[in-house]
Amino acid sequence: MTAVLLLSCSDQKGLVASISNFISDIGGNIINLAEHVDSEEKMFFIRVEWKMDEVHYSYDELILKFRPLAEKINAKWRIELAEKKHKIAIFVSKYDHVLQEILWRHKLGEFNTEICSIISNHNDLEILAKNYNIPFQHFPINNQNKLEQEQNEIDLLKKLDVDIIVLARYMQILSTKFVSEFPNKIINIHHSFLPAFMGGNPHKQAFMRGVKMIGATSHFVTNDLDEGPIIAQDIIRISHKDSVKDLVRKGRDLERLVLAKALHLHLEHRVLVQKGKTIVFE
Amino acid sequence: MTAVLLLSCSDQKGLVASISNFISDIGGNIINLAEHVDSEEKMFFIRVEWKMDEVHYSYDELILKFRPLAEKINAKWRIELAEKKHKIAIFVSKYDHVLQEILWRHKLGEFNTEICSIISNHNDLEILAKNYNIPFQHFPINNQNKLEQEQNEIDLLKKLDVDIIVLARYMQILSTKFVSEFPNKIINIHHSFLPAFMGGNPHKQAFMRGVKMIGATSHFVTNDLDEGPIIAQDIIRISHKDSVKDLVRKGRDLERLVLAKALHLHLEHRVLVQKGKTIVFE
Amino acid sequence: MTAVLLLSCSDQKGLVASISNFISDIGGNIINLAEHVDSEEKMFFIRVEWKMDEVHYSYDELILKFRPLAEKINAKWRIELAEKKHKIAIFVSKYDHVLQEILWRHKLGEFNTEICSIISNHNDLEILAKNYNIPFQHFPINNQNKLEQEQNEIDLLKKLDVDIIVLARYMQILSTKFVSEFPNKIINIHHSFLPAFMGGNPHKQAFMRGVKMIGATSHFVTNDLDEGPIIAQDIIRISHKDSVKDLVRKGRDLERLVLAKALHLHLEHRVLVQKGKTIVFE
Amino acid sequence: MTAVLLLSCSDQKGLVASISNFISDIGGNIINLAEHVDSEEKMFFIRVEWKMDEVHYSYDELILKFRPLAEKINAKWRIELAEKKHKIAIFVSKYDHVLQEILWRHKLGEFNTEICSIISNHNDLEILAKNYNIPFQHFPINNQNKLEQEQNEIDLLKKLDVDIIVLARYMQILSTKFVSEFPNKIINIHHSFLPAFMGGNPHKQAFMRGVKMIGATSHFVTNDLDEGPIIAQDIIRISHKDSVKDLVRKGRDLERLVLAKALHLHLEHRVLVQKGKTIVFE
Repeated sequence: MTAVLLLSCSDQKGLVASISNFISDIGGNIINLAEHVDSEEKMFFIRVEWKMDEVHYSYDELILKFRPLAEKINAKWRIELAEKKHKIAIFVSKYDHVLQEILWRHKLGEFNTEICSIISNHNDLEILAKNYNIPFQHFPINNQNKLEQEQNEIDLLKKLDVDIIVLARYMQILSTKFVSEFPNKIINIHHSFLPAFMGGNPHKQAFMRGVKMIGATSHFVTNDLDEGPIIAQDIIRISHKDSVKDLVRKGRDLERLVLAKALHLHLEHRVLVQKGKTIVFE
Repeated sequence: MTAVLLLSCSDQKGLVASISNFISDIGGNIINLAEHVDSEEKMFFIRVEWKMDEVHYSYDELILKFRPLAEKINAKWRIELAEKKHKIAIFVSKYDHVLQEILWRHKLGEFNTEICSIISNHNDLEILAKNYNIPFQHFPINNQNKLEQEQNEIDLLKKLDVDIIVLARYMQILSTKFVSEFPNKIINIHHSFLPAFMGGNPHKQAFMRGVKMIGATSHFVTNDLDEGPIIAQDIIRISHKDSVKDLVRKGRDLERLVLAKALHLHLEHRVLVQKGKTIVFE
Repeated sequence: MTAVLLLSCSDQKGLVASISNFISDIGGNIINLAEHVDSEEKMFFIRVEWKMDEVHYSYDELILKFRPLAEKINAKWRIELAEKKHKIAIFVSKYDHVLQEILWRHKLGEFNTEICSIISNHNDLEILAKNYNIPFQHFPINNQNKLEQEQNEIDLLKKLDVDIIVLARYMQILSTKFVSEFPNKIINIHHSFLPAFMGGNPHKQAFMRGVKMIGATSHFVTNDLDEGPIIAQDIIRISHKDSVKDLVRKGRDLERLVLAKALHLHLEHRVLVQKGKTIVFE
Repeated sequence: MTAVLLLSCSDQKGLVASISNFISDIGGNIINLAEHVDSEEKMFFIRVEWKMDEVHYSYDELILKFRPLAEKINAKWRIELAEKKHKIAIFVSKYDHVLQEILWRHKLGEFNTEICSIISNHNDLEILAKNYNIPFQHFPINNQNKLEQEQNEIDLLKKLDVDIIVLARYMQILSTKFVSEFPNKIINIHHSFLPAFMGGNPHKQAFMRGVKMIGATSHFVTNDLDEGPIIAQDIIRISHKDSVKDLVRKGRDLERLVLAKALHLHLEHRVLVQKGKTIVFE
């Protein structure tokens, strides 16, 4: 068993010592530690991973024991057990490539997840869900029923106790209400190097502008469309020979890999959000 | 001796045959040919490079002989002798890195250019110009004299018969008049992956947004700031560890290479401009 | 309908003119032309793609009509119809990632292929083949039956009239006889940046050497193991944090994309082989 | 003032706590900490950087105070003051690009170094050294005097008390004796993605093999030619259009950046060597 602490607080002397003493005192052996001080904002960020083999506390006891220290330094923090499976739900519409990628990696054992549900406003990808034995829920959406269907989705997600919601090229904009229910829990993939080409049809925008590369960006969803904290980005080169259709094809490869990378980082508790940006302990 | 034809026109049958027959008829041997048809816009673009060893025409005769064909197909075109040195002027302010790079490559023989003048609104880089024996002209600019000084610069550039103007991190915005004098002849380097972070201080903007990569873009200057046709772009990865100062440092490497690449392409007559975009025959 | 000519011969004057005149004379409209002269070897290489809409010849007549010109210039050449589906066979062992990638792209319509058979020395991937409705043939191989089973495979491939054989992480070394039956028709993916780490377990080799990046190389198979003409290569960065297992995981992403790219290039008739190297008209 | 500890030892419980307690006890504030456990080799590696503002010990006292802990955990270690200038010597032959790059970055303040000497077996680059006011020593080398001249170089380097020797495309192979005098202190740049294309003329080798990318590798020099621990590597794409001369030109850009990166990492005390490989705390 391995535990991971993600913590941020105002910078002050002795933080690493206090935290590593705590871990040492309970019998933990640190196998990974990364720390970052933002000297301008005077903030301290840390990720520590330690072996629990000789720690004789339950998870709940661990939390209880750490709390006094965390309160003393006035920290935002969470401790997770690395082996605990994340419960995730995947939202899709009609494109299958990102979903396909996640399911394949999941099956290979790359992701430590339980995929609780694939949720869609269309039923095109039901067969793919079935191939992998994942429950598929169809919530058709139109102008009239959007908020109502979102409430049904929220109810389902809460019932399933989902940790992470992945928008795998989901072609609906989520309402403020929905987003507010899951802060820093919704991960999206946008098919441009944000902040370039926000909004609809970024490949068409990229083609019109004549850029020499296209990108993909995975980010947490906030109520400012395409402006949430960026987790991962990448680009590939294009040329005048590429039509919009070529960009769509080339973009698929990027989207799959960038979302997979972001998901990886998040599932391994490597991502902290601070003021609209991320600290990623790779 | 080697000649290069760059040509664009409406697509029609037999264009490659007509052009290659012309070259064959005058005794040229094609050593490089690249062609592009934009099937949506129904436009034809071609770059042909041929040996002139057995061509018994002067450059002027060549132009005269080609003109009837060009007029028949209603083409925009130019023929250049590859060995002819370009006359370039470089505009700088205080940053030396891009200038340094161009001068060093120039000295190594990478660029087939005569650098006629280094023009600056400051005199910080005069010593560097002297090290390389390049004339340096100082045109101090303030709110009162800007248009007047620009006119002096235009006069100098015309007198020197300059082909290409390189803005090597020149920190002034050129007036509409200046830009209009040199269409598709002014090449700029902007330190972001345009169209992200247009305008001032893109590194600060990138830092604030929390992107995971920064870029540089070399483009022709038009009267829409940072919106001219893009010639070359590249990016490098950054992380939460990088301060704005780190971005500036890392960005320097990008800017040097991206502008050098764009200049290379343009000096070898590989760039065609069409509707705000470039066709780059690499 | 679109036709593609791939041709190489000794360099001589007027080649582009002769070829483009031929296409023009039969009524074709060139939509893509790329040409390369190797001035050291004095060799000429060309790829031309043209619309057949107004060409009133069958494929066989086209071949017949072009032959005299080809013979006159003493060329190696082939003309292909772009729309004609390639018949391919895929060899696999136990790893599914490259096969998965090809099947998924095939289904998406990215590859203009008919996948005639998935051939394996194991039966682990039979289910995956079935999911995509592709015939799966199991040829178990041991020290005694290897040559015999290869003969059975050759017979099957000939019966199916297969154009391209893809080794999608096939873990057997093909015999000289097998390779000789399909010159420049077998495409392999090797999980290193060749020529580094030839032979077995390149990820382990890379780990031991402490390189800062790993690669993948797709190449035609010849009888010199891992020394065939390279079609495509790429790398990703690694660090001291990565175990061999991490390299295997990260390598999978590379292998999938690099083989897909090589296959794309070959399926679009963009690859010429010359003296152990490739000319790739991207 | 900032201090940096680089330390490695067998993995054991409580190491981070002991080290961070030490720093906390002397009044240091940790601003950067990265740690790595090699679970297979059971080795522990750490880099810690802390503010010395409130530490009331001299450097020598610091060393004395840390020694007991280091001995208790049986560590290999060093503590450095980040602000202390490194004394470096640069070996060159005739190529100027890598030297140019180092001198330019040095002047910009990117490297915290005193360049004590530029040493060469030719005098071509004496002018460049003079432009930057760096002492230049010419040690002409032939078959007869090689060992003798190397001894003169060793004597000079010792007299100058040089920390780091940079081989900036130095075209001589250093003798075993020379290398043994400066273990893990000599940094070389090799113009290939090692271990591919070891030895002489890697660009020619790359051209002959027909690879689709070329690389550069910066590594510590050991007595196994081109086999020392790798610090940094990178590649760029090439194609069939590139002659050996093009590879040389494109390679220059790589060599400059890769060596600069390796030097950066080493100058900031981010590189540990372990069993022929490096741990790089980026």
